[in-house]
Amino acid sequence: MKTARYDRQRILKGFGEEGQAKLKAAKILVVGAGGLGVPVLTYLNAMGVGTLGIADADLVSESNLHRQVIYKENQIGLPKVEAIKDNLQAQNSETIINVYKSFLTIDNALEIIANYDVVVDASDNFPTRYLVNDACVILKKPLVYGALHGFEGQVSVFNYDNGPTYRCLFPKMPKVDAIPNCNEHGILGVLPGIIGNLQALETVKVITEIGEVLSGVLFLYDGLSQRTQRMQFNTIPENLELSELQDSYELDCNIPVKSIEAIEIEKLITDFDIELIDVRTKEEFVQNHLAKAKHIPLLDLKQRKKEIDTRKPVYVICQSGIRSLKAAVLLKELLPNTEIINVSGGMNQLSSYADFS
Amino acid sequence: MKTARYDRQRILKGFGEEGQAKLKAAKILVVGAGGLGVPVLTYLNAMGVGTLGIADADLVSESNLHRQVIYKENQIGLPKVEAIKDNLQAQNSETIINVYKSFLTIDNALEIIANYDVVVDASDNFPTRYLVNDACVILKKPLVYGALHGFEGQVSVFNYDNGPTYRCLFPKMPKVDAIPNCNEHGILGVLPGIIGNLQALETVKVITEIGEVLSGVLFLYDGLSQRTQRMQFNTIPENLELSELQDSYELDCNIPVKSIEAIEIEKLITDFDIELIDVRTKEEFVQNHLAKAKHIPLLDLKQRKKEIDTRKPVYVICQSGIRSLKAAVLLKELLPNTEIINVSGGMNQLSSYADFS
Repeated sequence: MKTARYDRQRILKGFGEEGQAKLKAAKILVVGAGGLGVPVLTYLNAMGVGTLGIADADLVSESNLHRQVIYKENQIGLPKVEAIKDNLQAQNSETIINVYKSFLTIDNALEIIANYDVVVDASDNFPTRYLVNDACVILKKPLVYGALHGFEGQVSVFNYDNGPTYRCLFPKMPKVDAIPNCNEHGILGVLPGIIGNLQALETVKVITEIGEVLSGVLFLYDGLSQRTQRMQFNTIPENLELSELQDSYELDCNIPVKSIEAIEIEKLITDFDIELIDVRTKEEFVQNHLAKAKHIPLLDLKQRKKEIDTRKPVYVICQSGIRSLKAAVLLKELLPNTEIINVSGGMNQLSSYADFS
Repeated sequence: MKTARYDRQRILKGFGEEGQAKLKAAKILVVGAGGLGVPVLTYLNAMGVGTLGIADADLVSESNLHRQVIYKENQIGLPKVEAIKDNLQAQNSETIINVYKSFLTIDNALEIIANYDVVVDASDNFPTRYLVNDACVILKKPLVYGALHGFEGQVSVFNYDNGPTYRCLFPKMPKVDAIPNCNEHGILGVLPGIIGNLQALETVKVITEIGEVLSGVLFLYDGLSQRTQRMQFNTIPENLELSELQDSYELDCNIPVKSIEAIEIEKLITDFDIELIDVRTKEEFVQNHLAKAKHIPLLDLKQRKKEIDTRKPVYVICQSGIRSLKAAVLLKELLPNTEIINVSGGMNQLSSYADFS
């Protein structure tokens, strides 16, 4: 029986009953249930998309709440996919919601994506973006892309109606030291709300075939000035001919430094005499740091290298492991005879295991 | 004690601790807890605005859910301000939330607005927009404006730093027959999400003094094409000199037809021999209508006027009373000797009182 639920969409000229029925029949996979995934899922669910898939391995954490607005305080610590499924179903019990409590990987991407009509990339890292792109090309699924940096965001639709793909826009994964420190950079809470909603709209346009889909166009948004730009780009035919995934989607880390996982660092500190450099900002360092850490921000490293005790192996740590990797590469140049080790995963990894001061 | 809650905003360059502290100290009034108000409130609450006021007299209804994404199915029938307060506090228990279970009126607008630093207009009608504008001018409060029509939306900031006001952009309230039928027109669920989030961002920019506020600029957004425009407009000095509210903010209804309230129509049908014309679309009529109603869509009225029994008084009904008013004005021209009466409030008013087939 029809309810009043979608009345206001059903009477919309150019959308109507037909648009509503297409939403109902659609199966959409959203990769990531974070800043972008939350608004995408919230609106697609409310508007009446029949089946939603959600892939994310993270737990809800307190520092998510300022931008991942669907999670409640009492859901901190729960797997995101479980928390968001509960909240979405309370808003719309008609939606079929499939959750995948894992990130997309080479092993599961094709199998998961095969079940959906459209994929929304709401991830926050390059390896996932390339993996999702390649899987969508192989399976011929349109891919709705969004990304954020500071006060800016971008949206596009790839692999739509033989249009260009993510690789036509960004052919190769950037080297680690060229990547902005996304996970460590700040983000204004509402920015992913804006970009995620634009992704949700493009998804609806792809499903219902209304309007002009952002295929072959990168839509650039600057929140500080409320100005937008459109950058056109073309299909590079070979990018449409992918037939299998790469063997690996690791970041291009052709970098002459060793790494250890952050969870190993505490034992190392106890058992060995090491030099540990924390390269985060002063604000971050003041908030929490390992007792043994010496604080030299990344930007001061060159100038203050003399403060580093090069008689010991030098471990470098930051929040998530990106800045520390840059710092390690730089230190390897500055101090070629010293053993330099990056602490992969950084303070983020530690904080998910234990408290520290 | 500091928590991790706003870490990602505090480390944002150009925002920082100072921006976060300004949000915490800010008091924001949001007029309307509907399609626009929901995203505005959701993000301002999550981002850490210290005090939020919410004014709305409506109850949550099923047809709200496709776009007013914070309301849950089990909140249908509750006052919106109560439902949204509960949901916002579950997301951020630190926010002080004041609710006003009424629309803004001449009698309460100045008193309520006086308690806040910034006002967000998330209403859906012209009388409220002019009332809120005038009250903000009198009290010298910046006003963050948003509005929707079909697949399009617009955003601006009025009365900011001696900038122009709503009346500098739209000097006078339009006549009823020039108003698009907002409440009857369809709306794609995510559209108010996009426009509301842009309003939330402008509100944050006003509070924290970052970026370039949309003062003197009307930002126009078209969702179908993902294109935006900026329309500049200037201050008309006399609009800043308002010192009191108008006596009335009723729509300019200098129109030669009588009206009755919709709740009276059923008794009229029972007691008198009247002609009742329903001017809605076929889709709307099929979904529900009064048993006695004759269906002639507004657009067919001129052509099919002969089907109207002019020996009886002719009552005209639609969904909310806007199209029926237009129809009544048209019929008065076409049938000058017939008594024509508009059914004010339309089917919406009836459905809040009773079931009908």
